[in-house]
Amino acid sequence: MKVLGVIVEYNPFHNGHLYHLKKAKEIVKPDFTIAVMSGNFVQRGEPAILDKFARTEIALNMGIDIVIELPFVYSIQDANGFALGSIGILERTKVVTDIVFGSESADIETLNIISDIIYKQPDKFKNLLKKYLKEGYSFPNARKYALIHFFEKNNILKKEKVLAIEKSNDILGLEYLKALKYYNSKIVPHVIQRQGANYNDEEFKGNFSSATAIRKLWKEEMYELIKESVPQKTYEILKREENLGKAPIFIEDYEISLLSFLRTLNRDDIQEIFGINEGLEQRIIEAAKQSASIIEFYRLVKAKRFTYTRIKRTLLSIYFRLKKDLIYDANKYGPQYLRVLGFTKKGRKLLSVMREQVAYPIIVTPSNYISIIKNIERDLDNKRKEWEIKKNLYFKMIEYDFKVSNVYSMYYKNKEFSRGEIDKKAKIIILK
Amino acid sequence: MKVLGVIVEYNPFHNGHLYHLKKAKEIVKPDFTIAVMSGNFVQRGEPAILDKFARTEIALNMGIDIVIELPFVYSIQDANGFALGSIGILERTKVVTDIVFGSESADIETLNIISDIIYKQPDKFKNLLKKYLKEGYSFPNARKYALIHFFEKNNILKKEKVLAIEKSNDILGLEYLKALKYYNSKIVPHVIQRQGANYNDEEFKGNFSSATAIRKLWKEEMYELIKESVPQKTYEILKREENLGKAPIFIEDYEISLLSFLRTLNRDDIQEIFGINEGLEQRIIEAAKQSASIIEFYRLVKAKRFTYTRIKRTLLSIYFRLKKDLIYDANKYGPQYLRVLGFTKKGRKLLSVMREQVAYPIIVTPSNYISIIKNIERDLDNKRKEWEIKKNLYFKMIEYDFKVSNVYSMYYKNKEFSRGEIDKKAKIIILK
Repeated sequence: MKVLGVIVEYNPFHNGHLYHLKKAKEIVKPDFTIAVMSGNFVQRGEPAILDKFARTEIALNMGIDIVIELPFVYSIQDANGFALGSIGILERTKVVTDIVFGSESADIETLNIISDIIYKQPDKFKNLLKKYLKEGYSFPNARKYALIHFFEKNNILKKEKVLAIEKSNDILGLEYLKALKYYNSKIVPHVIQRQGANYNDEEFKGNFSSATAIRKLWKEEMYELIKESVPQKTYEILKREENLGKAPIFIEDYEISLLSFLRTLNRDDIQEIFGINEGLEQRIIEAAKQSASIIEFYRLVKAKRFTYTRIKRTLLSIYFRLKKDLIYDANKYGPQYLRVLGFTKKGRKLLSVMREQVAYPIIVTPSNYISIIKNIERDLDNKRKEWEIKKNLYFKMIEYDFKVSNVYSMYYKNKEFSRGEIDKKAKIIILK
Repeated sequence: MKVLGVIVEYNPFHNGHLYHLKKAKEIVKPDFTIAVMSGNFVQRGEPAILDKFARTEIALNMGIDIVIELPFVYSIQDANGFALGSIGILERTKVVTDIVFGSESADIETLNIISDIIYKQPDKFKNLLKKYLKEGYSFPNARKYALIHFFEKNNILKKEKVLAIEKSNDILGLEYLKALKYYNSKIVPHVIQRQGANYNDEEFKGNFSSATAIRKLWKEEMYELIKESVPQKTYEILKREENLGKAPIFIEDYEISLLSFLRTLNRDDIQEIFGINEGLEQRIIEAAKQSASIIEFYRLVKAKRFTYTRIKRTLLSIYFRLKKDLIYDANKYGPQYLRVLGFTKKGRKLLSVMREQVAYPIIVTPSNYISIIKNIERDLDNKRKEWEIKKNLYFKMIEYDFKVSNVYSMYYKNKEFSRGEIDKKAKIIILK
């Protein structure tokens, strides 16, 4: 049995995503497809334009059989943590046999060689990396030069090949491959050439506009152009959610909450927060006082060392008080549960197979998340300490997912949907 | 030289306030009048409808010579803390000779006798109070019955006299008198009969509408009725602030920020917060998840033991992470600075007298608040430990005032006013 795994955000699902999914299926010819998908906040450090339930529904309609949520603690990390979370989920399903990811270079061989070095970290490479970092290069550049230097003499990889690996999908791809090695996974990776618009491209490009461009179109209420850029079913759900007053949600919808909250903070309050270092805490606290909008704030905090995305992610960590030690444990031990957001009729069969094999709690009814782990606890006797850490991680991780949804739902325009714990109330999405 | 002290919120200033000020001046015949005034959040646990700068300007126009800010840490406490802060400020001016406050009973003798008991807490009274509290009475009721019981045999106060002291101004008056004793103050207290509308009265009552009623009129944009209820100059400033996009500010303006923030909290996060006990933390955290608006939230949290005002104040404490131990120190040591928000030409003379006598930093230019205390520190050598506590208090107290303004300014409709630290930028308000 072949099971394809994909790592997605679908924010929102568009023609490019559909193309990618089709191509991936052509390569793998899977019996089933599982997607691990970011929840209500995405890796850009922003709220998703549609909530995770609507995005799950779309994914199921578009050919995914099971959608599993990437825990919040991974979904807002950089490429390394994002990959450790998403590959961790796919690995722990026990059923995924192949993954396919987009790549600008589409050069899996080079990606594999490089990822091997950055996973194994031979001393020579480590020293080179340190040297370039010391000289003041940003991490991506220091790593690039260290790799070139490392391969220079042994002739394994030519300089041009290393230099070609520099775009966002390739960088993420390196981390996926590294994570596969970390989990000692047997999953087979494949790449497909990135098509259409770039990830961050704001421009409308007809059929193949990027998610960024589509979000912009939605903000400007250019419905006709959105229609051209997304599958029909996506468009229907997107309009339905808008009519319900649940979408679109933009970063501006949390700006007052966020800026107000930042203004109550002291430097000490954020020292331990994940993503805070190199004086970022002082910049953030000062900028919050000076800014009247989130855009102004980003502009003030931004520096060569701090990209917009990094700042936005760090703000979310601050807002949810996500501490460094939790992220450290989360990355070390990997995801501690599989939260199933939805499945198709066909996916249900795969889910029963998973239930027999998976060593981690599968959560379909979130309100049971406490009793689920208690059942497992009862069966365990040894490995006590690690179990304690993992149990702790399980609770912390999943409670973040719930909190994130509770916060996100405050941004719905229709306040009818803002009450109660939406995650615990939400019914699993089953496409029949 | 006679100097009248008044304790005000002016939220907003209305005809009743003007009447009160006139009457007070008739009683005391002062050479100068000083007001201690709440800042951007008032004792009801809500943002002020106009910011403290506009309210200062109005006060100066209406016959106050110097306006001093009541530090945030006192302005959102119950009657006890509110009185310790405001009487503390007036006492520490060294120049205030008389205070006048409104009273429903206007029975200063009874108020004095009762306040003496609640200040000195004789054992017999303490035991009675404990007994009634144990029987499940709310604090105000338990205190009332304990007093009646206490006076029963010695015939000092008749039951009817004790029973007559039960309205909000009288309760606050008791605390003012108690605070005067606490500071061993020589200030002479006077009362005047409360006129016009009740504090919480929502109804429009012509010339003498309450501040609550006026705020409601403002929300409903009933400008003609507001005009009847406030002095001309108040109306002008109020309209000017509205045109600038800085007012009116309602509790709804911070509801998303507050509810979103509450949804990120765990029970542990608020255990140490001032105002949290008797299981209130659990109610708050649960209610935040269930509520789509602040009004719904209050309704869910409210119980016999928890009044609306108490809940609203506690929420502010949570939002600003105001801890129990800070409030404990603040109430024990009293205010550590006099923050002058504004003065008239005449008030300037009194301010120079104060500068020679006052033992606490007088802050006219807030951005100097650090250097001001450093100068004082240099002169000190002994009493080291208490000085450390007080210095610490000074910083914590005043930094709350700054933060509160920073948060409040996020609610201005006109975002031009939302940038930077408004307290530190604000020029002292001088009426010439």
